[in-house]
Amino acid sequence: MEVTRTNFKESLSDVYSAIEEADFLAIDGEFSGISDGPSVSALTNGLDTPEERYVKLKKHSMDFLLFQFGLCTFKYDQEKSKYITKPFNFYVFPKPFSRTSPDIKFICQSSSIDFLACQGFDFNKVFGHGIPYLNQEQEVQLREQTEERRNQHANGLGTPLHQQSCRKGRKPFSSNKETLDLEPCSGFQRKLIYQTLSWKFPKGLHVETMETEKKERFIQVSKVDEEERKRREQQKLEREQEELNDAVGFSRVIHAIPNL
Amino acid sequence: MEVTRTNFKESLSDVYSAIEEADFLAIDGEFSGISDGPSVSALTNGLDTPEERYVKLKKHSMDFLLFQFGLCTFKYDQEKSKYITKPFNFYVFPKPFSRTSPDIKFICQSSSIDFLACQGFDFNKVFGHGIPYLNQEQEVQLREQTEERRNQHANGLGTPLHQQSCRKGRKPFSSNKETLDLEPCSGFQRKLIYQTLSWKFPKGLHVETMETEKKERFIQVSKVDEEERKRREQQKLEREQEELNDAVGFSRVIHAIPNL
Repeated sequence: MEVTRTNFKESLSDVYSAIEEADFLAIDGEFSGISDGPSVSALTNGLDTPEERYVKLKKHSMDFLLFQFGLCTFKYDQEKSKYITKPFNFYVFPKPFSRTSPDIKFICQSSSIDFLACQGFDFNKVFGHGIPYLNQEQEVQLREQTEERRNQHANGLGTPLHQQSCRKGRKPFSSNKETLDLEPCSGFQRKLIYQTLSWKFPKGLHVETMETEKKERFIQVSKVDEEERKRREQQKLEREQEELNDAVGFSRVIHAIPNL
Repeated sequence: MEVTRTNFKESLSDVYSAIEEADFLAIDGEFSGISDGPSVSALTNGLDTPEERYVKLKKHSMDFLLFQFGLCTFKYDQEKSKYITKPFNFYVFPKPFSRTSPDIKFICQSSSIDFLACQGFDFNKVFGHGIPYLNQEQEVQLREQTEERRNQHANGLGTPLHQQSCRKGRKPFSSNKETLDLEPCSGFQRKLIYQTLSWKFPKGLHVETMETEKKERFIQVSKVDEEERKRREQQKLEREQEELNDAVGFSRVIHAIPNL
């Protein structure tokens, strides 16, 4: 089964259950290069243990990119006395998920790229539809950032305020409109507006950052009763959680493989 | 006009004449990244002269790869009072041209690759059909290597010989066959056989290295009269020259641009 960004989410439960029921797994990878130092034949020799070989190759391949991750699960069927195999072919690419996300730089080796091209490897599929992923450190960092943002919003009460933001936020609903879109503004300004609104209107308002088609960010303020406000907060939390899962992306498959 | 490895040679005369008749040229490039250090906005500012900007950007972009070279020639048509433009779009990639050619390593920046992918850029065309090229240093090196190989063959006479090769080469034509294919062997062995044959049979033989389908190299010896020998030598020279031109590849376009 071929898995790209397009069908990743819908395939995930199949992948999880295949891993869970498997007796053993086989993995394989296609990389953007093999060695950034000596050639593989100069680096290793036939007397190396598998571990020695692995350590040597790993040392000279950390700046290359994994383009494709092949996973095949094997489950023994007692009745038929044969293995049931489920192969998955994941196209992966660290597409930056937001303006502040890490912009990965990776090395390519012409001979490796040429080899893959000669085998008919589809680079457009990798770069255009590869599943994004985060390494452990990046994932922890993103979870902390999300958590921090939530706490800032929750603790907005009583925080010192910038006067201008305060004036802007004073009377958001002079008309009868239920929703008010403020002008696009910077992240710093948005933070001040959040603080001001939660201080001046601790109840009855739902405040959220939206994006225009031009990717400019603005604040949308909605007049809501307590029930509706909670419902929206819950929706927002779920959306944030889903964005976080999307960013973690392919790493969710790795997490699902036990003892890796 | 889109130019890849497939139609490069047949397009070359059109490109040359367009450059020659042009009043001025415009060039553009698509790269695998923009900056390996600070972001472009942090690196440059609006007060930079074009030269200052160029030097700053160049400093942080030398390890990226050029994927596409856009060239447009402009020629003023006096009668119609307008410019005739000829645009060419070259896909370029440093495909290693032999086992001993340089294996270029280049950096990619995810954000740049993602940008190109979103614009529908065809990476398969670059990696699979990009025109190869050599920089000046590599070109000089290859010309020297080719020259050296020719001289070695020409000066084979009277060079010290390895006994076994001598025995192997003693009686190549015990039968009436006009052509004899020796067993595939190493470059060192081939060199010895060349020397031996040119010493033992200074006339009447044409000796050439060929490749099997499995890319194993072997020596083919043919019985020829002096005229045929010269014709084959000439053919071989022309073939070598063409291989050299193929390796220089896209750089031939750059050489054709005056004062670059």
